[in-house]
Amino acid sequence: MNERSVYRMVGRVENTEGIAGRVARISVSAIKQMPVLASKVPGCISLGQGIPSFATPSFITEGVIEALRSEDWIGKYSLQPGLPQLKEAVAKRLGETKGIVVDPETELFISCGAMEALAAGLATVIERGDEVLLPSPTYSSHIEQILFAEGIPVFVPLVEEEGWRLDVPGFKKAMTPKTKAILICHPMNPTGALFSPEDLRALAEIAVERNLFVIADEAYDFLVYDGLSHFSLTSISELKKNLIACYSFSKAYCMTGWRVGYMYASGRLIEQVLKVHDAFAICAPTISQYAALTALKKTNGRDGEGDRFMRRLVEALDARRNIICEHLDRLTDLFAYQKPEGAYYVFPRILMHGVGSVDLALKLLYDAKVISVPGNGFGPTGEGHIRFSFGATEKEIHEAFERIELWAKRQAFPKSRRPLKMD
Amino acid sequence: MNERSVYRMVGRVENTEGIAGRVARISVSAIKQMPVLASKVPGCISLGQGIPSFATPSFITEGVIEALRSEDWIGKYSLQPGLPQLKEAVAKRLGETKGIVVDPETELFISCGAMEALAAGLATVIERGDEVLLPSPTYSSHIEQILFAEGIPVFVPLVEEEGWRLDVPGFKKAMTPKTKAILICHPMNPTGALFSPEDLRALAEIAVERNLFVIADEAYDFLVYDGLSHFSLTSISELKKNLIACYSFSKAYCMTGWRVGYMYASGRLIEQVLKVHDAFAICAPTISQYAALTALKKTNGRDGEGDRFMRRLVEALDARRNIICEHLDRLTDLFAYQKPEGAYYVFPRILMHGVGSVDLALKLLYDAKVISVPGNGFGPTGEGHIRFSFGATEKEIHEAFERIELWAKRQAFPKSRRPLKMD
Repeated sequence: MNERSVYRMVGRVENTEGIAGRVARISVSAIKQMPVLASKVPGCISLGQGIPSFATPSFITEGVIEALRSEDWIGKYSLQPGLPQLKEAVAKRLGETKGIVVDPETELFISCGAMEALAAGLATVIERGDEVLLPSPTYSSHIEQILFAEGIPVFVPLVEEEGWRLDVPGFKKAMTPKTKAILICHPMNPTGALFSPEDLRALAEIAVERNLFVIADEAYDFLVYDGLSHFSLTSISELKKNLIACYSFSKAYCMTGWRVGYMYASGRLIEQVLKVHDAFAICAPTISQYAALTALKKTNGRDGEGDRFMRRLVEALDARRNIICEHLDRLTDLFAYQKPEGAYYVFPRILMHGVGSVDLALKLLYDAKVISVPGNGFGPTGEGHIRFSFGATEKEIHEAFERIELWAKRQAFPKSRRPLKMD
Repeated sequence: MNERSVYRMVGRVENTEGIAGRVARISVSAIKQMPVLASKVPGCISLGQGIPSFATPSFITEGVIEALRSEDWIGKYSLQPGLPQLKEAVAKRLGETKGIVVDPETELFISCGAMEALAAGLATVIERGDEVLLPSPTYSSHIEQILFAEGIPVFVPLVEEEGWRLDVPGFKKAMTPKTKAILICHPMNPTGALFSPEDLRALAEIAVERNLFVIADEAYDFLVYDGLSHFSLTSISELKKNLIACYSFSKAYCMTGWRVGYMYASGRLIEQVLKVHDAFAICAPTISQYAALTALKKTNGRDGEGDRFMRRLVEALDARRNIICEHLDRLTDLFAYQKPEGAYYVFPRILMHGVGSVDLALKLLYDAKVISVPGNGFGPTGEGHIRFSFGATEKEIHEAFERIELWAKRQAFPKSRRPLKMD
């Protein structure tokens, strides 16, 4: 497999009589298949789905409890684009964190998590046969969302040995007259990479030049390490007309189960996307919107409860990142990895010769009782890798790697003949 | 307009540069547009969106509060098809209410309300150019969901003067080789009609014969009046292979804002639909699933808190139905209506000559401060009608109709030259 080439994927068409092509050719992402398999295997430790071990903080749940006892409207539909107070709080927050001016009335809507925003956004701008450029590896659900919209994912491999760097000339080379959009997840799932402002600017410049849509999944924007900072595509004003930026409350406030996030885009685009939101969701869950509002009310960019919670979260995840990296450093026969700079994933290359990613993930599940996610679902260059989340507790990470070490000792893997040259 | 003819609708294509056709040609349903307009008009009474005045009952909210304080997992993703305990409770409930045997593992998934289940179900079985038969008038969002799936809604007018009866021969006549599915909302939004078991069986027979999918929106299944009972399409065993039945907790437990419902279908179909659910939602909100589980745990078909709540709800809505009908009976110059037998909508014909449904809805909003929904969004024979919900309190219904009467007195409408012959 030539690392620098570009892959076009039409998707797998199953023998599914009567099922629409857009659905027949997608699959449930491996990220969600693994927990379903694992639910039948008692005693597993999960380094699989990206769920931090922390509960939703009590300053949020207690706010919700108060409202549940006093506000009748909390059980009813909100306005379809979201609670106006929440949209205002989001606009304010985007202003503070990204330095942009957002009209809460027209440029935002509250979604059932970033996922709904991304799926609805892609369904709105991608037509049958449109090509969407995305890095590889990339978040598996983005691939499914593009295929659902009957678009063609066109993968531009990241430069793994340089910390999963964006290959901007690669993107340029991959453009065709059918290219309609670029989709970037940043900080990156599954690699944990941060992209440089220079590379993102260069990519944005190409998008503006060619009038492409840019879909930005910035769900992990708050979660960066080593004193680095996240460069948001929203800060490139020339992009605004064609930008669809999606955010989540799931990660920053440990609210994965609440299903609440939002989209920021031009008024013209929001108006279109809202039609899809209306047809699929009516509105985001009102109780979750209230929880999100409570979170933002206590987040002032300084010492609010929300700020303190997020700081502690980033610190805890940073410590877990170091622990998982230390374990990986001891397993150089099995894995070679790039240290993550953001999000809570590491995406090591599998060095065990002849062991595919699904093979390894299933072995780890059934033999070592550790849940991971096979790399093959993350695009064509994802194969040969495995994703570990370090959202689990320190104790769980230690225990999981003890299990993996024990398991590995029982095997006799020849080391891959083509280990990746590490920098 | 010939009442008995069949209408084919391709949808309205706006001048929306770069927007995918599937989205350009749909619109946000008028049901949701009206509250957005109304949010700028202070002092309105809503007979618009279908939100019962009741709060989510405290036996549900208190259960949720307890879990919020004791269960960390309530803030986290559930398994993607839903909480296993909830799926089991739903299977049990379907067994009790519909007399069917449901495998909770393979034949169910928990959705973000019935809407997500319907949208995902249609996207799964409808391909570009497939025709979907549905009665007219019909629930507006179904039309948008079909158009989103790039299908063609084919409307078969209901027989208004016979209580909005299903025209089974009309369905037969409307079939073409491109017919792929039939979509039935029952009890019916917006007409409040109950269909007869005979007509539903005859329709199902045609569907089985032609191997069509049947999508059933049974969100109002518990809500019937006058001692009538709801005949569920799930009870026709021959249909099972091709049936997609969608349900909601929104109406029975006054949980519209929680966004939780479910789909019952064959394992083969559920497996496909789950791919769409994964791409759009990941999972239904866990807290809402827990609320739904609490509701079902207290609903035993006899004297559980859930049963008592639903009984009181049906009684209260029945009283409101009588009140709204009494008011309509006094306005025979303005409206002619069929008395609803289920759901909480009435869909009177507008007798004011030269007044269209949008025209009337906007006049009622701005001049009388009463929110309604114009009939034109409910399919081609919806025009000339207006939808009133009687989910509002008795006091609100009285006050709304006093406003409408006052407003009408200030007008001088010539009575329509073609009033509908009433039975």
